[in-house]
Amino acid sequence: MVQYGMRAIVKVAPGRGAGLRELPVPTPPRDGVLVKISAVSICGTDYHVYSWDAWAEQRIHRTPFTMGHEWAGVVIEAGSECTSLQVGDYVSGESHRVCGHCLQCRTGQGHVCQNTRIFGVDVDGCWADYFAVPEASVLKNDVRVPPEIACMQDPLGNAVHAALAGEITGKSVAVLGCGPIGLFAIAVARGVGAGPIWASDTTPYRLELARKVGADHLLRIPDEDLEAAVRIGTEAGHGVDVVLEMSGAPAAIQQAMRLARPGGRVSLMGIPSRAVTLDIAEDLIFKGLTVQGIVGRRLYDTWYTMKALLASGRLDVSPILTHRLPFEEFETGMDLMRSRQCGKVVLTL
Amino acid sequence: MVQYGMRAIVKVAPGRGAGLRELPVPTPPRDGVLVKISAVSICGTDYHVYSWDAWAEQRIHRTPFTMGHEWAGVVIEAGSECTSLQVGDYVSGESHRVCGHCLQCRTGQGHVCQNTRIFGVDVDGCWADYFAVPEASVLKNDVRVPPEIACMQDPLGNAVHAALAGEITGKSVAVLGCGPIGLFAIAVARGVGAGPIWASDTTPYRLELARKVGADHLLRIPDEDLEAAVRIGTEAGHGVDVVLEMSGAPAAIQQAMRLARPGGRVSLMGIPSRAVTLDIAEDLIFKGLTVQGIVGRRLYDTWYTMKALLASGRLDVSPILTHRLPFEEFETGMDLMRSRQCGKVVLTL
Amino acid sequence: MVQYGMRAIVKVAPGRGAGLRELPVPTPPRDGVLVKISAVSICGTDYHVYSWDAWAEQRIHRTPFTMGHEWAGVVIEAGSECTSLQVGDYVSGESHRVCGHCLQCRTGQGHVCQNTRIFGVDVDGCWADYFAVPEASVLKNDVRVPPEIACMQDPLGNAVHAALAGEITGKSVAVLGCGPIGLFAIAVARGVGAGPIWASDTTPYRLELARKVGADHLLRIPDEDLEAAVRIGTEAGHGVDVVLEMSGAPAAIQQAMRLARPGGRVSLMGIPSRAVTLDIAEDLIFKGLTVQGIVGRRLYDTWYTMKALLASGRLDVSPILTHRLPFEEFETGMDLMRSRQCGKVVLTL
Amino acid sequence: MVQYGMRAIVKVAPGRGAGLRELPVPTPPRDGVLVKISAVSICGTDYHVYSWDAWAEQRIHRTPFTMGHEWAGVVIEAGSECTSLQVGDYVSGESHRVCGHCLQCRTGQGHVCQNTRIFGVDVDGCWADYFAVPEASVLKNDVRVPPEIACMQDPLGNAVHAALAGEITGKSVAVLGCGPIGLFAIAVARGVGAGPIWASDTTPYRLELARKVGADHLLRIPDEDLEAAVRIGTEAGHGVDVVLEMSGAPAAIQQAMRLARPGGRVSLMGIPSRAVTLDIAEDLIFKGLTVQGIVGRRLYDTWYTMKALLASGRLDVSPILTHRLPFEEFETGMDLMRSRQCGKVVLTL
Repeated sequence: MVQYGMRAIVKVAPGRGAGLRELPVPTPPRDGVLVKISAVSICGTDYHVYSWDAWAEQRIHRTPFTMGHEWAGVVIEAGSECTSLQVGDYVSGESHRVCGHCLQCRTGQGHVCQNTRIFGVDVDGCWADYFAVPEASVLKNDVRVPPEIACMQDPLGNAVHAALAGEITGKSVAVLGCGPIGLFAIAVARGVGAGPIWASDTTPYRLELARKVGADHLLRIPDEDLEAAVRIGTEAGHGVDVVLEMSGAPAAIQQAMRLARPGGRVSLMGIPSRAVTLDIAEDLIFKGLTVQGIVGRRLYDTWYTMKALLASGRLDVSPILTHRLPFEEFETGMDLMRSRQCGKVVLTL
Repeated sequence: MVQYGMRAIVKVAPGRGAGLRELPVPTPPRDGVLVKISAVSICGTDYHVYSWDAWAEQRIHRTPFTMGHEWAGVVIEAGSECTSLQVGDYVSGESHRVCGHCLQCRTGQGHVCQNTRIFGVDVDGCWADYFAVPEASVLKNDVRVPPEIACMQDPLGNAVHAALAGEITGKSVAVLGCGPIGLFAIAVARGVGAGPIWASDTTPYRLELARKVGADHLLRIPDEDLEAAVRIGTEAGHGVDVVLEMSGAPAAIQQAMRLARPGGRVSLMGIPSRAVTLDIAEDLIFKGLTVQGIVGRRLYDTWYTMKALLASGRLDVSPILTHRLPFEEFETGMDLMRSRQCGKVVLTL
Repeated sequence: MVQYGMRAIVKVAPGRGAGLRELPVPTPPRDGVLVKISAVSICGTDYHVYSWDAWAEQRIHRTPFTMGHEWAGVVIEAGSECTSLQVGDYVSGESHRVCGHCLQCRTGQGHVCQNTRIFGVDVDGCWADYFAVPEASVLKNDVRVPPEIACMQDPLGNAVHAALAGEITGKSVAVLGCGPIGLFAIAVARGVGAGPIWASDTTPYRLELARKVGADHLLRIPDEDLEAAVRIGTEAGHGVDVVLEMSGAPAAIQQAMRLARPGGRVSLMGIPSRAVTLDIAEDLIFKGLTVQGIVGRRLYDTWYTMKALLASGRLDVSPILTHRLPFEEFETGMDLMRSRQCGKVVLTL
Repeated sequence: MVQYGMRAIVKVAPGRGAGLRELPVPTPPRDGVLVKISAVSICGTDYHVYSWDAWAEQRIHRTPFTMGHEWAGVVIEAGSECTSLQVGDYVSGESHRVCGHCLQCRTGQGHVCQNTRIFGVDVDGCWADYFAVPEASVLKNDVRVPPEIACMQDPLGNAVHAALAGEITGKSVAVLGCGPIGLFAIAVARGVGAGPIWASDTTPYRLELARKVGADHLLRIPDEDLEAAVRIGTEAGHGVDVVLEMSGAPAAIQQAMRLARPGGRVSLMGIPSRAVTLDIAEDLIFKGLTVQGIVGRRLYDTWYTMKALLASGRLDVSPILTHRLPFEEFETGMDLMRSRQCGKVVLTL
C-alpha cells in the first residue's frame, strides 16, 4: 500500500497558471488501479486550462484539481474488483471517462457519450507521480513502445480515428493544419499506405515536421496555392479522395469541401471558433461528399489499431515528439505550446 | 421496323413553354433499344426547363430537344449489339447517362460522374411515343408494377438512395420537406422498418400525403416546433438517428444538424439556392455527425433495391401519384407543379 | 425492501427435470436492479437443461440454480451504484453476461466474448418471481410492447442479428429451418423490406407459421425441391441474395451455399451436431460468397434496432407466440418444446 | 497504322506445350485500343494451359489462341469510339472481360460476373508484340512503376482484393501459402500497416521471399506448429484477426478457421481440389467468424488502390519478381513454374 505524498501539477484556482503541489497518493477505485506515472504530454486543452482563456472560464466549474490526461505508466496497485489489470502492467489510458450506459455507449459510439467527464478537466487528471483510474479507462501498452511515445496515444488516437474513419489506404489525402494532431494524421495516413499526401500550415517549423512524417507536398498558406497544387496532382484534376481538416480555421473548412473530389470524404476535427458559411449545393450535394465530425477516439477500436500500428513499426511518430522536459518544468512546456514552435511536448517523471 | 411519325413534347427554343410536335421515330442505337413509352412523369427539373428560370437559362445550351427523363415502356426494337434486352421487355431507365470510364464510374460512384449527360436536358428525352436509349441506361421492371408507378422510379430512386445511404431500419427519422422526393423518402423509411418518423413542410396538402405514406408526426412549419417535438420523442432528448433534408431551405439545413442525435446521420438532398452558415463546432464536430451530399441514384444498386421493394408490396408509393393526365395535357401538369397542390404528376400515352 | 420468499423453477440436480421451489428474494447487485418478473419464455437451451441431454451434461458444472434467461418485468429496487435504471422501469435483458474488458467486448464484438456467462446456465436465471441482474444486462422496453412479447427479445435478437448482419432490404432471402428463430428471421426480413422470401422446414405446422409471418414460398423438405424453386424465382436463376441457415442440419448448410447467388451472403446460425463437408471451390470461392457465423446479439445495437422495430409495428411476431401458460405449468411447456408443434412458449407470472 | 506481323505465344492445339508463331497484328476494336506490349508475366493458369492438365482439358473449348493475360504496354492506336485512352498511354489491364449488364456487373460485383471471358483462355490473350483490347479492360499505369512490375498487377490485384476485403490495418494476420499471390498478400498487408504477420509454406525458398516482403514469423509446414505460434503471439491466445488462405490445401483451409480469433475474418482464395470438412459449430458459428470467398479483383476499386500503393512506394513487390526472361524463352519460364523455385516470372519484349 502506497502511503507517502506525491508531486502533482494542480490548477489551484480560476485564472492563469498552475502550481506544483504535494498531494496524498490517491487510493485506486474498487474497479480500477493506481498507476505510477512515467511520462505525460501536454494537450492544447491543458494549455487552455493553464492560460485560462474564454473556453476554460466557461467550461470549468470547480478548482482545485490535478491537470492532465495524456499519460503512460505502470500499475502498482489494483482495486478489489479489478479483473483485467494487474500489478506491473504497462499502461496508458483514454481521457474521456464515458458513462457506459447511454445509447451511444451501448452502440459503439462512446466517443460521443453525452455524459463524458474528462480527466484533468472534470475530474482529477494524471499530471502527478501517481494516478488512480478505473480499469475501463486503461489500455495495456506494447512493451516495445517507450513511455514518452505511449503517453501521446490519446491525441494520436484522434488522428487514427480521423484518418481511419473511412477508406484511406491507396487514397490521395490533404491534411489541413500541421499542429500535433495534423502531424499525427500525416504519419498515420503514410503508415497505412495512403498517398500522395498534401499538407498545409502557416508555420515553416510545422511543415518541416510534416515532411519528416511523410507528407509529399508542403504548402505554406496563405502564400502557396493548395487548391491549384491538388488540381494538378489528382485524377482529372478533381481533387483528393480524403481531406483531414485539423486546423479549425473557417477558411480551411471551406477549402476542405473544394479540395475533395466528387464522391470523396472530408473529416473535420479542428474546432472553428465561429460559424462557417458553406456552398452546400456545389461543394457538398452535387459532389456527393461525405463530411464527418470527428471527436475523440472510437472506444476502443482506435486504441487497439493504434497499438498494433505503433508496435509494428509502420507508424513512426517520434519526429513529432520535439521536446522532452522534466516534470517540474511544465511552465517551459506551456511557453512552447504558446510559441507553436513545437510538435508534442512531453514531461517525464 | 417502325416508320411513321410520333408525338413529342419539345423545348422548341429558349424562353417559357414547350410544344407538342410530330417528330420522326428515332432509330435505336447499336448498343440500345427503341422503347414504346407507356407513361412518363414530371420532375421539378422539367418544370425548370418549361418555365425557363435562371437555372435553365444557365444550364441549357441548345434547343430544340425532346423533354423528359422519367418513363416506363416496352422494348419494340433492339440494336445490333444490344445483349441484355429484347423486344417485349417492360422497362424504365436512369436519367443520368454516365461516361462509364472515369474514376467515379469505375469505382461504384457513377452517380457523381462528372461527364454525365441528362436525358431531356443535355440529350433528347423520353416525352414522346418512342424513345431511343442505350441499354446501359435501361432496367427491367417487375411486371406487377404498373407503368404509372414504374415511370416514377428515377425520383423514387433519389429517395431510396438518400434513405439507404446509411442504417435506417429501426432508426428514428426526420424528413424535412414533403415534396415528391420527401414523400417518397417517408414511404421508403416506413417500408424498411424505420420509426418513428417526423415530417415537416409548409403545406397542409403535402403533410396530409406524408401521413398517408407513413409519417408518425406531422409538423407544419414555421408554426409548429419540430425541434421540440423531436426532443420530446427521442432517447434522452438527443435527437433523431437520421435526418433526410429534402427541402433545400437554408434554415432547414441548419435545423437538420440540430435535429440529429450525437453520432447520427444527416443526408442532404434538397438544393439550397444560396450559401448556408453552420455551427460546425457544436452541431457537427462535437456531435460526431456524418453529413452526406446525396445526388442521383447508386448505379444500379439503388434500382435493384427499389425494384424489389416495389415488387414485394412493402413500398407503396401510390398515394404520392396524385394526378394522371393524358400526354397532350402536359401544360395542365405544369400548372399543377407550380401550385404545389400535387404529389407526382404522370402523363399517360 | 423486498423480504418475503418467491417461486422459482430450479434445476435441482443433474438428470432430467426441474422443480418449482420457494427461494428467498435476492438482493440487487450494487450496480444492478431487482426485477419483478412478468413473463418468461422457454428457449431450446432451457429444454436441453431440463431434459439433461449430452450437451447439458458436458456444459453444466454445478447445481442447483434457477433456470431461464428470457424475461420481461419491472424494476422494483435499484442498487446503490446503479445509474441508468430506476424503480418502475419496464425492462428485459440480454442472456449473455459478458466480461466487458476483453478485446472483443472493447471493440463492438461482445457477442463473442470468451468470458461470457449465461443466465440460467452459468449463473442464476430469471424463472422466478424476482430476478437480480446487473444494469449492464438490462434494456428498457417500449411500453407499447406487452410482456409476453418483450420476454422473447433475446431469441428474437438472434434473428435480428442474423438478418441484419448484411444488406437485406430489397434482397431475396431463403430461410432454412422454421423453428422459433427461423420464424423470427422471416418476420424480421419481411419487416425490413426483404423479398421474395423462401422458407423450408420438415414440419407443416411450422411452415404454416412461416406463411403467417410473411414467407412467400413454403417448401416442405425433403419432398419439395427448394433449389429448383429458388432457381426459377431469382434473377438469371443464380440464387438468392441472402441465405439464413437456422436449422443446423448438415444437408441444409451444404444447401445454403448452393442457394446463394454469386456475390451473396450466407449467415449460419443453426448449430450442426457434426462436421460438414463443403465444396469450397465451387460453392464458396468461385461464387465470391460471404459466410458468417452468427451467435448471440450485437451488444447492444441489435437490442435498440429490435426495440424500434417492435414499437413501430413493422415487426409483428405475435403469430410466433403460440402458447401462453401459467408459470407453474412449465412442464407442459417442456412437453410442447419436445413435440415441435409450437412456436414460442411463454410462461406468465 | 501498324501493318507488319508480330510474334505470339500460341496454344496451337489440345495437349502439352505452346508455340512461338508469327501472326498478323490485330485491329483495335471500335471501343478499344491496340497496345505494344512491353512485358508480360506467367500465371498459374497459363501453366495449366501450357501443360494441359485436367483443368485445362475440361475448361478450354477451342484452339488455337494466343496465351496470356498479365501485361503492360503502350497504346499505339485507338478505336473510333474509344473515349478514355489515347496513343501513348502507358497501360495494363484486367484479365476478366465481364459482360457489364448482369446483376453482379451492375451492382459493384463484376468480379463474380457469370458471363466473364478470360483473355488467354476464352479469347486471344496478350503474349504477343501487340494486343487488341477493349478500353473497358484497360487501366492507366503510374509512370513511376516499370513494365515488369506493372504487368504483374492482375495477380497482385488478387492479393489486394483479399487483403483489403475487410479491415486489416493494425490487425494481426496469417497468410497460408507463399506462392506468388500469398507473397503479394504479405507485401500488401505489410504496406497498409498490418502486423504481426505469420506466413506458412512447405518451401524454404518461398518462406525466404515471405521474409523479404515483410512476414514477421515464418513457419515451414508440416514441421513447424503454426497454431501454437499464433496462440503464443496473439491477445489472450485467441488467434489472429485476419487469415488469408492462399494455398488451397484442405488442411490449411481447416486450419484457417482455427487460426482466426473469435470475431475474426478468414478470406479464402486458394482453390481446393476436393471437398473440405469443417467443424462449422466450433470453428465458425460459436466464433462468429466471417468467411469470404475471394476471386478476381474488385472492378475497378482494387486497381485504383493498387496503383496508388505501388506509386507511393509503400508497396514494394520487387522481391517477388524473381526471374526476368526474354519473350522467346517462355519455355524456361514454364520449367520454373513447375519447379516452384520461383516467385513471379516475367517475359520482356
